[in-house]
Order: sequence, then C-alpha cells, then structure tokens
Amino acid sequence: MINYTKDQLNSMLKDVQNKYDEYVKQGLALDMSRGKPSPDQLNLSDDMHEIQYDAKLSKADYRNYGILDGIPEIKKMFSKILGVEEDELIAWGNSSLTMMYDAVQRAYTFGVYGGKTPWGKQEKLKFLCPVPGYDRHFAITELFGFELINVPMTSTGPDMDVVEKLVSEDETIKGIWCVPKYSNPDGITYSDETVLRFANLSPKADDFRIFWDNAYFAHEVYGTEDKLLNLLNEAKKNGKEDMVYMFTSTSKITHAGAGVAFLAMSKANMAFNKKLLGIQAIGPDKLNQWKHVVYLKDENGLKEHMKKHQALLRPRFDVVTDKLDELKAEGFIEYQKPRGGYFVSVFTQNGLASEVVKLCKEAGVVFTPAGSTYPYKKDPNDSNIRLAPSYPPVEELKVAIDVFATAVKLATIKKLITE
Amino acid sequence: MINYTKDQLNSMLKDVQNKYDEYVKQGLALDMSRGKPSPDQLNLSDDMHEIQYDAKLSKADYRNYGILDGIPEIKKMFSKILGVEEDELIAWGNSSLTMMYDAVQRAYTFGVYGGKTPWGKQEKLKFLCPVPGYDRHFAITELFGFELINVPMTSTGPDMDVVEKLVSEDETIKGIWCVPKYSNPDGITYSDETVLRFANLSPKADDFRIFWDNAYFAHEVYGTEDKLLNLLNEAKKNGKEDMVYMFTSTSKITHAGAGVAFLAMSKANMAFNKKLLGIQAIGPDKLNQWKHVVYLKDENGLKEHMKKHQALLRPRFDVVTDKLDELKAEGFIEYQKPRGGYFVSVFTQNGLASEVVKLCKEAGVVFTPAGSTYPYKKDPNDSNIRLAPSYPPVEELKVAIDVFATAVKLATIKKLITE
Repeated sequence: MINYTKDQLNSMLKDVQNKYDEYVKQGLALDMSRGKPSPDQLNLSDDMHEIQYDAKLSKADYRNYGILDGIPEIKKMFSKILGVEEDELIAWGNSSLTMMYDAVQRAYTFGVYGGKTPWGKQEKLKFLCPVPGYDRHFAITELFGFELINVPMTSTGPDMDVVEKLVSEDETIKGIWCVPKYSNPDGITYSDETVLRFANLSPKADDFRIFWDNAYFAHEVYGTEDKLLNLLNEAKKNGKEDMVYMFTSTSKITHAGAGVAFLAMSKANMAFNKKLLGIQAIGPDKLNQWKHVVYLKDENGLKEHMKKHQALLRPRFDVVTDKLDELKAEGFIEYQKPRGGYFVSVFTQNGLASEVVKLCKEAGVVFTPAGSTYPYKKDPNDSNIRLAPSYPPVEELKVAIDVFATAVKLATIKKLITE
Repeated sequence: MINYTKDQLNSMLKDVQNKYDEYVKQGLALDMSRGKPSPDQLNLSDDMHEIQYDAKLSKADYRNYGILDGIPEIKKMFSKILGVEEDELIAWGNSSLTMMYDAVQRAYTFGVYGGKTPWGKQEKLKFLCPVPGYDRHFAITELFGFELINVPMTSTGPDMDVVEKLVSEDETIKGIWCVPKYSNPDGITYSDETVLRFANLSPKADDFRIFWDNAYFAHEVYGTEDKLLNLLNEAKKNGKEDMVYMFTSTSKITHAGAGVAFLAMSKANMAFNKKLLGIQAIGPDKLNQWKHVVYLKDENGLKEHMKKHQALLRPRFDVVTDKLDELKAEGFIEYQKPRGGYFVSVFTQNGLASEVVKLCKEAGVVFTPAGSTYPYKKDPNDSNIRLAPSYPPVEELKVAIDVFATAVKLATIKKLITE
C-alpha cells in the first residue's frame, strides 16, 4: 500500500518522530475507546423522563407486576418500526446484550425450538464470528465454551461463501453473530444478496440460530439511510424463520443505560422462549417502556429524534474520517468510511495495530486495545483498530485523531525502514 | 379439630348450603389470588417518578452505559438498611426473582465459588423447599431439573432438624429456598435460633447455597416489627459466608413492576459472580436507582414510606383474619395470623383445599389454586390455601372472605357427614 524510497522514509521519520515527541510532551489525556453517546446526545432525551405515567391511560396498571412480553403500546410501535408482527416481538429491559446472553443461556441449558438436544449437552460447540466484530458478542459465546470461528467481513457483509459452506457441513456450528446495519466496527450494511443468503441458509445443525443484532437500525450519521432487508420476513418466505433471532434496543436512541431492548422471532420460537422467560421473570419495567412510547411517538418521531443525534455525531465523524482519508491517500492505512453507526474501523499494515495503540497510549490517547474486534482478542494480522468518535468533543477528537495518524505513520515508517 | 354431632352437622349443612347458593346466584367476580400491591399502594410512590436526574449531581453520568453493580448512592443506602458492606451488594434491575434465576443459571452452567463442578454437570440435583412456600421459587429449580424436597415449616421457620440432617448427609442437595421474614405464605419470621442454625450449616456439598429471599424485610402490617438476624453476618462468624445469597427488592415498596432488586453476598462470591455478570450485562437502569435514593432517602425515609403501605394493608388483613379467627374458633381451619408480609396461609382439613378453591370459583371468587404453595403444585395433604388480601378493596374482601368461609364450612361439613 505504500511506495516510498528509503530516503523519503528517513526524512519522513524525522518529522513524524518530532511531531510524536511533541505530543508526548503535552501530557494529553484523551479517550477514543468509548463507543457510547456523548453527554450532548444524552441531553436530547432528558425530557422523556418528565413524562408521567397515568394508570387511567392504559388497560392494565403498568406500575404493577405482570405483562411478560412488554406493554402493547411499545410492541405496536416497534413492531411497525422493525417490520414484524406484534406477537413476534418481546419488549424488555435496558439491555439487548442481556437478551442475547439469555437467548444463549436458554439454548445452552434447555435447547431451542426444533432442536433435539440442548447446546450444553453436546460434545462440541462452535459459533461463527464475522471479523472484525463486537467483543461483547464474542465474549458471551466464549464464556459458554464455544469455539469461535472467524469469518471475514466484506464490503457487503460476512463472506457468505464461507458462511454457507461451514454452516451446511458442520453440525457443531450453532449460530453466528451479526450486526447487519452500520456494523460494529466497520459501519457496513449487509447487502440484499447477503440477507437473502442468510434467509436461505441450510444449516446441518437442527438448532442453528442467527443472532441478528440490529443495534444501529436507525443510526444514520450522514443523512443517508441504508436499506436493510428484513431477515425474519425473508426467512419466512423460505419457511426458515425459526433460524432467526433479531435484537435491537433504544440504548443509543434515548439513554444508553436506561433504554428498552427488543427481541423479534417467529411465533414458534416465541412460544418456546416465553415459557422459559416466564420462569425467569415476571415482566420488564413497563413505566420506562411507556415513557418511550409517549416520547418517541412513532417511526417519524423516532426519525426526527435520530436527526438530532446525527447533528451531533456528523462533525465528530468528519474530523476523524477527514484525517483518515489523508492517511489512506498517503498509503498508510486501509479503511472504508462507515455508512452510519458508532465506529470507524482502520486497518494498519499487518503487525502494527498493537504498536500504534501503544504509541497513542504513551502519548496520552486511549484507543480500544488492538485485537478487541476479534474472538479471544486475537487479531491474526494485528492490523485492525476500532475508533469510537461519538463521545469526545470535536476539539479533543481533532487532537486525538492527529495523534493516531502520527502514531500510524511512525510505526509504519519504522517498520518499512528496518525491512 | 371439629367436634359436632351428626344432627348438628346436618342442620349446619342446610344453612351453609343456602348461604352458598345465594352467593352463586349473585354472579360475583372477585379475586383474592393476586399477591400484588393495590392501586392505592402504587399511588403512594407516584411522586418518585417526578424526580429528575441531573448528571451534575453524580460523579459518573448515570444516563450512560456502565457501572455493573449499581450506583454508589443506592449501594450505600441499602447496604446500611440490609446490614451488609457496600462491596457485598449488587443493586440491579426491576426483579429479584430474575436475580435468583440468574444465580441458579450461573451455578448450573459455571458453578459457584468454591465448588468443583458446575451444578449442571452433576448426575443428580436436589433442592430443599420449605412448605408451604413460594411457587415461583420452586418453578426455577424445577425448570433446571432439580428434585424438589419438601421441608416442613414450623412457627419458627423451616424444621431445622430436617434441614441439618438432609444437608449434611446428601451432597446432591445444592440449596434451599427461604423467605425468612413474614414468609410467603405463612407470614412467619425465622427465629434467632433458626437463623443461627442456618449460619452454621455444614453441607456435604461443596457448592451448597442458601437462597435467602428477604422480600418482606420492611413489610410490617401490624405496626410491630419482627427482628430477623442477619444471615450473612452470622455466617461470617463461622467462616461460612460463602454459603449465603441474600436477595431483596423494592417491588412492594415503590412500584411493583419498576423497583430495584438487590443481591448481597460474600466478597468471594461477589468476585466470582461479577465476572460472569459482566459478560451478561453492562449495567442496570441507573436512573431508576437514582430516583429510589432521592425518594426514599434513608432507612427512616423507607420506614415512614412503609407506614403508608401498612395503613392500607392493615384493614384488608383485619377483614380477612377476623373471619378466619371465627372459622378457626369453630374448628374448621388451622391458621396462624401472619406477622407481616403479603399473605395469609390457611389449612383446611386434609383433602379439602382443592374442593374449597373450586367452590369459591363457582361462586365467582378466585383464590390461588390449591397446591400452588408446594413443589410441583402438589400439596400432599391437599390442605393449604394461600390468601392474598393486598389487592382488592376492603368491601370486596369482606364478601370474598365470607364466600371463602362458607365454602370451607360447606366442604368440611359434607366431608364429615359422609365419613
């Protein structure tokens, strides 16, 4: 990717080293590791908490126990938004990650609808992990003892040739983690072809599940919306809807720690899982669900609200991607500008990601540890770094991304010189 | 318990049958099965939701992700109230039942601190169930395939001779369900001796846990407070604190569906469990925790608030227990007036509980199905009925408990006549 003479490299090294040393002297304390909303984004939803529930306004009293699958109002609203039926949807507590853990935990101990044996009673378990991907996904299946299999991401989603082959041949493969829209960390949206191939998978395992974490379904950054096909509905056309668990939440819509999570699945999956859920719980926090409905209103209300997030995220992303565009043009990195979501994914030359993150840290700028985007935190190429532009103010980001660029250049030039 | 002549019985039967038939004609629709707060009780806490969180008031921003074990403010407040240390306490979401399920789920799949083998990898599993008890407790361990062993309740708690013997001899016994204060359904508080014997159990199993569900720790009904010894602290004196999981929640303090649940345990248990919890979740709804702290303030604030609940519960309990006192005096039932909590537990003559509940239902009054207070919903004596006086208005309760008394008499007299 880079094509400089030794002389050019040596002259660049001097400048870059000077610049880096200057940064180290400044004693910065910046953080680009946190994929969470900024305080300004959180402020957007403060009004939601002023909404007071009145028991006269609903058939059941939402202050009391009960209603296992969420209040009808939020199920109605989000089934429309997510394009599923109301009885295919559970509206739950403040964490879709917990819903995913619970889906794994139930399948592990009690099996899944249509499966003969609980996952945990089987000899060998594997799970597919498109990489780079989300560390908290991988950690769940690692905890349950799955062997995690890397599947390369392409610009249209996971490499479906690999997915189809593995899934159809190996019955120890029980599922795959997907972030199909504005993926974490690449910001890629799965193409129609990718979704259609997912919807028509023929797994060898009778208990295979696609964990479709649509975390960023409404999370535009650039004012353009990617269209993602609805996996559950596409799978239905093939009679394969039981293979699909679709998750999402309002964590990055309202308040990250106090949102509402959702799980959509086929009616057969629903009946199977609700029986188990009914032993685990009495019902979610319905007052918080109520507030979400009154506040967000409907799909349009949600979209208008998300535009305010965009307005805060866009300049942050721009600062980062402008610098990365330069760095890419100079041949130091590979990266695709994300199409939305919360992250920017950068590929250094092989073997440099850890060194770059280390250099940044020594200059006072924290990035997500290299490797975090891969199962077992092991990036086989030591090349991918996840940048999270959402949290720091723009002025801090300007400095942080320049430190990053300086560190990338320094590490790359040093490597090239000694080669 | 009853001592009437045949003639007396026959004359009573006529009156009772007439009275019952009159009730049937009325087409009542009453419900004494629901152990949940009344709307008036829920109204008490509506103001809590007007409290607005301000990120300036706390070190971390509670609107955002993070803080796995709950906000420091609520941990400080409830560690004082519960008599444990702050780092022995997790403040969590809206359901202590879910925390119990999760504790079982973790032990089943990943084991417990100090245990050699996860519960789920062992051949045979048993769990002790003091009876009568709480059906949702029993349902959790039933789901995970435990054999549920009845342990008789006495007026001072579970029969500790039985508990000690079983636990010390049988290593397949992994735990026991306890509601130590104002127990569900008997309304008994465990005596100091009972708690001290629990705190000094010597289980044969290296992975035995006491599930101490202190659901009614502040739930006086009669203005007198039972004192319960602190199991965790008593167990510490014997170096046996790792055996104890103590649960509670604010479900019946603020809003039943939107409270805060707690789990207190030893520091070793805490370290073990937090590692697993950190994979399952990012953190609880911290805004709801914040509201609870500001609203309830401290132990005194909590007590003052609970007095308002008492004022609503007391007349409801009185209507029920006054009638039951008569019924007991006439020899038709055995029962002990509860000392607090949410239930009244009645023992009919053996073999009559199902019949009484059925008669009530046919007269339009719903009670908890007979057997519900026993594992597998099977009361070996078909004798126990759980009455829940909290929800219906006093006027309805007057009718409902009279229907109950009539049904008890009818069933008992008929049985005695045919014997």
